[in-house]
Amino acid sequence: MLSYSFANIGSDSLYEYLYKCLRNDIVSGIIKAHERLPSKRPFAKNLGISVITVENAYSQLIAEGYVYSIQKKGYYVAAIHSTVMEHKAILTEDNVRLSSGKSSFFADFTDNRTGAADFPFSVWAKLTRELLTDNQAELMTTPPCGGIFELREAISAHLRDFRNMNVTPEQIIIGAGTEYLYGLLIQLLGFDKIYAAENPGYKKISNIYKSHCVSCKFISMDESGVRISELEKNNVDILHISPSHHFPTGMIVPIGRRYELLGWASKSDNRYIIEDEYDSEFRFNGRQIPTMQSIDVLEKVIYMNTFSKTLASTIRISYMVLPKHLANRFYSELSFYSCTVSTFEQYTLAKFIRDGYFEKHLNRMRNYYHSKRDTIIKSITQSRLGLVSSISEADSGLHFILKINTPLSDEEVCRNAENNGIRLSALSYYYADETVPNAVLHTFLINYSSLSDEIRDEAIERIYQALNMN
Amino acid sequence: MLSYSFANIGSDSLYEYLYKCLRNDIVSGIIKAHERLPSKRPFAKNLGISVITVENAYSQLIAEGYVYSIQKKGYYVAAIHSTVMEHKAILTEDNVRLSSGKSSFFADFTDNRTGAADFPFSVWAKLTRELLTDNQAELMTTPPCGGIFELREAISAHLRDFRNMNVTPEQIIIGAGTEYLYGLLIQLLGFDKIYAAENPGYKKISNIYKSHCVSCKFISMDESGVRISELEKNNVDILHISPSHHFPTGMIVPIGRRYELLGWASKSDNRYIIEDEYDSEFRFNGRQIPTMQSIDVLEKVIYMNTFSKTLASTIRISYMVLPKHLANRFYSELSFYSCTVSTFEQYTLAKFIRDGYFEKHLNRMRNYYHSKRDTIIKSITQSRLGLVSSISEADSGLHFILKINTPLSDEEVCRNAENNGIRLSALSYYYADETVPNAVLHTFLINYSSLSDEIRDEAIERIYQALNMN
Repeated sequence: MLSYSFANIGSDSLYEYLYKCLRNDIVSGIIKAHERLPSKRPFAKNLGISVITVENAYSQLIAEGYVYSIQKKGYYVAAIHSTVMEHKAILTEDNVRLSSGKSSFFADFTDNRTGAADFPFSVWAKLTRELLTDNQAELMTTPPCGGIFELREAISAHLRDFRNMNVTPEQIIIGAGTEYLYGLLIQLLGFDKIYAAENPGYKKISNIYKSHCVSCKFISMDESGVRISELEKNNVDILHISPSHHFPTGMIVPIGRRYELLGWASKSDNRYIIEDEYDSEFRFNGRQIPTMQSIDVLEKVIYMNTFSKTLASTIRISYMVLPKHLANRFYSELSFYSCTVSTFEQYTLAKFIRDGYFEKHLNRMRNYYHSKRDTIIKSITQSRLGLVSSISEADSGLHFILKINTPLSDEEVCRNAENNGIRLSALSYYYADETVPNAVLHTFLINYSSLSDEIRDEAIERIYQALNMN
Repeated sequence: MLSYSFANIGSDSLYEYLYKCLRNDIVSGIIKAHERLPSKRPFAKNLGISVITVENAYSQLIAEGYVYSIQKKGYYVAAIHSTVMEHKAILTEDNVRLSSGKSSFFADFTDNRTGAADFPFSVWAKLTRELLTDNQAELMTTPPCGGIFELREAISAHLRDFRNMNVTPEQIIIGAGTEYLYGLLIQLLGFDKIYAAENPGYKKISNIYKSHCVSCKFISMDESGVRISELEKNNVDILHISPSHHFPTGMIVPIGRRYELLGWASKSDNRYIIEDEYDSEFRFNGRQIPTMQSIDVLEKVIYMNTFSKTLASTIRISYMVLPKHLANRFYSELSFYSCTVSTFEQYTLAKFIRDGYFEKHLNRMRNYYHSKRDTIIKSITQSRLGLVSSISEADSGLHFILKINTPLSDEEVCRNAENNGIRLSALSYYYADETVPNAVLHTFLINYSSLSDEIRDEAIERIYQALNMN
């Protein structure tokens, strides 16, 4: 009969230890396939443990398939194909890279996240505390696929009051970031459609389309936005644009081109425009630019926005506004998806908007960024860098454009800067391959939102040093 | 010269009101394309307002493209294509359906969310409060694409201690729900691959594959799990299974079949197994079943788990463990994606696990569900329903199987139940079309986790009434 010593049992329970001993002997072939295991009672007696302990170990082995039982006959070892088990030559890459998420740069002008000092922590903590005390049942209730009604209602009211948009809460779909919503839209509009992104543009958008294996064209732009003729030539179905503040140039698509684009979209049932307003809230002079959604009477515009810029990029809450017929299609085809944002944060944000904190926060941030932008522009102008550069598109958004008079290539400037602890990106980087016009060379993006006052002048000086002027 | 009355200015500022008047006249054609607008100074004088007000209104109109300026000549109205603007016949579906997320049933046996009473609100509130006070900078730091290191480290330690799995934090990818992670996996493994789901199985999985337009086969099962021969016949690349607790049957795939499946996967570089452990923590008798990931030496198993069942389905945090070579591919191809879970909840959960609260919570919930399950099984056995039914697969998980002796079809039973306020689903519903074996008819799923004690007996009686026995 099998026998095991319980001397090395360690922290295991008796039955666990017995289970492991038996399993090891089965796996290593000491007990052969279809061999009969000892009957419970004599085995228990032999080991000096209770019958129930043996029974538990056998049950576990049966549950995992190492052992089978035949009624009134006993317990038998199962036949395990051990081909895989014997293969022990493990081919593996030992070092998986993991970015820490912490920037190792002295200053990072490619980063436009909001700083810790800018987030309304005390209000957020108060609202969270209230919710966790007063609204436990709501927090634990599965929300509809588009998000909790209260948040969609608050966003609908915000869009009405501040963007002059008339949309029902039902048209608003909440998701964990616009990137996630792009993926949902591909599923809604079709993998067989031809998508298009602006050239130059935000690289992530075309990356997402490519990663979903859908066709994505790059459409070049004139001074009013994407060229309609290229949309037609490329048989584009879905056009992705940021008409209120193009990234990276900062251009605003004028009303005439907006109507031309709507006219283009009206010519086929498959055509839609995704209007991505990633930072329209930070227009510093004059009123905000009206959205294309608000002048779209043919249900051709899908509006998208995010709380990444206005609140925090680390709270993942974005939303899209679907035309009504697409909202209905979304509910009938994609409502099996759960909403990707936790109810805890959805309720907190709903309260934050409804109780007026969001409006106050936006005003505060607008003033804050306006003055921050003015300060850095003034610092650049008064520095040595100012003598060899000019600033444009400074009217809105969390970045502006710096044109530098330098014989160095964009790569050289960025590399020199990087060696000096400064992360910088050039406008030319946002063009699809080999389409960079000469006019945009030597032009760099200055994302200033996360630049602290203390390092401002030093960071500007380091950009100047990257030009190798001395 | 144009003239406007400021009598109806309402809450607008002077410049906003002037902007709107001009815009309306441009849109309605009162001021024609290429018409010259009044010079700022005389216009301001005429209207009795300041020059700066006129300037602001003009700037806004220029920004939006209604007006263009020619240096030293003046301001002109842009040509706007008004074809779309004139189209006012709006075809729209007025009523967009919106599910409220609240169940209107007396009892819902298809729902396995956790109840409000089961969530550790006070600990969660304490951890959140501490974070919002002490860790503001961390909360605002953009995390790596796979999630914050602290949470991945905590999960890695948990998997080591409780699942005997040896994985590095770098192999763990955090996402807002397993559904989202399935989508990421399709992008990682390829849209051209052939995916497979268990038949019967969790419908949502095949829905997600279909919605991504990838090929998804249904693989029938014998008493040990999916049939290897069918995997071969269908040229399957990626197999999606829940070997520790199959949904809905509750079956455990025995060790022999597990090795056969690993053997199948080893035969091609394209082949992978997605091991989805949706509720393995709730095994009530004996040890937990070892994961396939822990016996996979060939990097063929992608392990997935979620905090939906163990913590709350409304906090959207799931994770997958990638084999190292796939983790490297993930970082090189998909790291442009932001992590979909807010840092606020990632840090809270990391602390919750690290400080031992998760283990305590799991033990508490395991005991709680165990006793809840025993109580409902006892209630059924002692009821009239017990006389015409038998219970199986009651050993683990948040549901069990009720086989009812009834001449009614599954649809009739569920319809009768629904008319009586009881939501019920039949095992046959989880089979792909027309593949339901006779043996599984009259078999129903009892999800008991959200059933409150007060309505238990009444809910059981109503199921009995749905059988029309009297």
